[in-house]
Amino acid sequence: MGGENAVNTATAQKPEGYRILNAEDLRHLIAHLPLARQLGGRPETWRIEEVGDGNLNLVFLVRGKGSSGFAVKQALPYVRLVGESWPLPLSRAHYEHSALTRQAKHVPKLVPKIHHYDEALALIVMELLEPHIIMRHGMMAGTLYPKFAEDISSFMAATLFHTSTLAMTAENFKSLMAHFAGNTALCNITEDLIFTEPYMVAENNRWTRPWLDGHAAKIRQDNDLKIAISRLKLKFMGSPQAMIHGDLHTGSVMLTSDDTRIIDPEFAFVGPMGFDVGAVIANLLLNYFSQIGHENKPGIRDDYRQWIVDTIEKVWTLFHRKFLDEWRTHGHGDGYPYKLFDNRHGTLALERERESYMGRLFRDTLGFAAAKMIRRIVGLAHNIDLEYIENPKIRATAEARSLMLARDLMVNTSDYRDITVVTAAARRINDTTPELTERNQRDED
Amino acid sequence: MGGENAVNTATAQKPEGYRILNAEDLRHLIAHLPLARQLGGRPETWRIEEVGDGNLNLVFLVRGKGSSGFAVKQALPYVRLVGESWPLPLSRAHYEHSALTRQAKHVPKLVPKIHHYDEALALIVMELLEPHIIMRHGMMAGTLYPKFAEDISSFMAATLFHTSTLAMTAENFKSLMAHFAGNTALCNITEDLIFTEPYMVAENNRWTRPWLDGHAAKIRQDNDLKIAISRLKLKFMGSPQAMIHGDLHTGSVMLTSDDTRIIDPEFAFVGPMGFDVGAVIANLLLNYFSQIGHENKPGIRDDYRQWIVDTIEKVWTLFHRKFLDEWRTHGHGDGYPYKLFDNRHGTLALERERESYMGRLFRDTLGFAAAKMIRRIVGLAHNIDLEYIENPKIRATAEARSLMLARDLMVNTSDYRDITVVTAAARRINDTTPELTERNQRDED
Repeated sequence: MGGENAVNTATAQKPEGYRILNAEDLRHLIAHLPLARQLGGRPETWRIEEVGDGNLNLVFLVRGKGSSGFAVKQALPYVRLVGESWPLPLSRAHYEHSALTRQAKHVPKLVPKIHHYDEALALIVMELLEPHIIMRHGMMAGTLYPKFAEDISSFMAATLFHTSTLAMTAENFKSLMAHFAGNTALCNITEDLIFTEPYMVAENNRWTRPWLDGHAAKIRQDNDLKIAISRLKLKFMGSPQAMIHGDLHTGSVMLTSDDTRIIDPEFAFVGPMGFDVGAVIANLLLNYFSQIGHENKPGIRDDYRQWIVDTIEKVWTLFHRKFLDEWRTHGHGDGYPYKLFDNRHGTLALERERESYMGRLFRDTLGFAAAKMIRRIVGLAHNIDLEYIENPKIRATAEARSLMLARDLMVNTSDYRDITVVTAAARRINDTTPELTERNQRDED
Repeated sequence: MGGENAVNTATAQKPEGYRILNAEDLRHLIAHLPLARQLGGRPETWRIEEVGDGNLNLVFLVRGKGSSGFAVKQALPYVRLVGESWPLPLSRAHYEHSALTRQAKHVPKLVPKIHHYDEALALIVMELLEPHIIMRHGMMAGTLYPKFAEDISSFMAATLFHTSTLAMTAENFKSLMAHFAGNTALCNITEDLIFTEPYMVAENNRWTRPWLDGHAAKIRQDNDLKIAISRLKLKFMGSPQAMIHGDLHTGSVMLTSDDTRIIDPEFAFVGPMGFDVGAVIANLLLNYFSQIGHENKPGIRDDYRQWIVDTIEKVWTLFHRKFLDEWRTHGHGDGYPYKLFDNRHGTLALERERESYMGRLFRDTLGFAAAKMIRRIVGLAHNIDLEYIENPKIRATAEARSLMLARDLMVNTSDYRDITVVTAAARRINDTTPELTERNQRDED
């Protein structure tokens, strides 16, 4: 990724009037906006802290009187994790705002409320979500989220269905597609870091060494896997099915036991639906395998593992049911025109085809889930579910198990006819002892 | 199609300064352009005639001294065939010019040379192609075109391959896609007239009555066919694989025995490759079945039929070979990244996958070919290969045979493993006597 084009784009898209804000700049900015009143008290009394722990942006929490407050996200003109050497266009704030606004139309209770958007500053002022925490952290602590499967399945069914040609006219759909086609730089990150680099020798790659050296090398030599990931990449680049979130992992979910919000859709574009559904399932599976590193004594998290397995199954079955319900009720788009099927036999035929459509979507989901798992283990960006396991051999064990499942999901996708086949495989693999490389290969030379 | 949106789009996109030209306006316009010199002589001596016989535009031939001349195409703000009640945006001239320019980069000898483009007037001044004739006319007369299969396969292999992610970066590809996403109105025509209306009761539909009444009714009740066409429609709307011509029938080909030019890409957009390849094969098949209506005595066109069959087979086999050659030589795009496969085993795996890719493209081709055949027989726009057959029963016989093959191609696509299976089926069906409706159904009531 990067390269000359990316640099030029980043520079070209830096709007007039952009500057990186610090806490005092932000205090001044908000003080002059109508929404200052919502904070109450004088601006000097507001508490402002920068808490961004993501890879890309600044995030400020602004607290006023009592429980009032905002979360403020500002895009930086480069990747925060890496620095100015890796430029990234500010326009991603534009696409994030645009996606949030569209999602809010369909699932207003499942996204943060937007209070203010400043295009020039690439800055979004949102509702402060408290006492919500990032789902990934909660799962590492073993917290149950009884509403999560219901909420995430509603989010996906509604946002994906209603931004597809099953619900939209071709004309409106194409203008949505053209709009998000500008979010190329963010798509490029996905194309490079998820669909390409983990499968070759690349500077960005890293993994738990020496333990996974053998697994990483096997991936780079596995032609069946490389063909499969390339097909998925082609699907990612060339299957505009719906406006997808584009980064729907458990770090993009903030929740309490009874409220769920999906944040951070800056990777949004019109792409394959299975990429979102797969992201959710992949991150649940990664956390499942990571539990070995988070339990104080073996087996103590078994109930939690069972909850994760149940949740994975519910995410798919509820999504499947809700998506079909949307289709049956609101299927008035240009895809599968309802006028062709408006008699009893037609309805039956269309219903069979809907199941077949969901079957194709399920296979896409599994392929993309696998891609998401592999990149978190041998690519650039890892996730803390695994990363925070201190004992490297235990971490590598969880990671190797994740890789085993992912490889099979991606190459033998059609063997997984049902979500329960996936969870059964996860359980089985979680009981195996994967081969690990005991010593750094180079030391043996 | 049409509807309120289409009207608004057409009105909104009518550029300042647009006016419909007559021959004298055009004479005046060209007289003030540098290219007037190419015509030679004084403007009053130029011979200008309007010859547009298509459905959408004005076409003028402008002849100067000796053999010098231009063909001038001007878009009208409505569908010429229907009139002002069916508005159509002038921007299609912009997309046509844009597609012609891009095609010229890859196959300069197979497209007309552009001399001048006037965006405001939606007008393109092109090379006058003489003594070329429209291929459809030549085939009705039984003329052999020995270079056609070579040329059309080169055109498709080069234009499709080089505008796909197999050759392009994802970034450039997405900007190409976004550019052509504006050509919605023309895509809508295809979506409605090819993928929807022929399969339902629709005002636009017409067919050879009463002879095809039974066939038309069967199509409207055929749920397997309606599911198949809906899948193809979804693919048309949501599979940006390459910049396609979008209307690649034998009326978009002008040729002599040794020179072939592809014209009229105003339906161009980034869509499924199989739509172009299928259009060529569909129109050859329709002409094959139409020969019964063009021969003076039975069997006299058998050699010509054989040439058509050979040509159909060569179109696919040559396209297949040339597309793969392009891929092997220039496959440096973001799709199937060559870096993943740059060793002997990788090369072998990628080569297998290329064949598999071509297999998928072949199935798309057959599905789209079938869609193109059916719409020409029971939809709005027919083609003269069949339309010019005066005896309606003979015409209906040719049409019913076309429908029989098309139905099977679309529903049982994967049974056709090879282009020779398609041509064998065409021959077999051409020997059958299809059932025809002898009397207008309503008369019998």
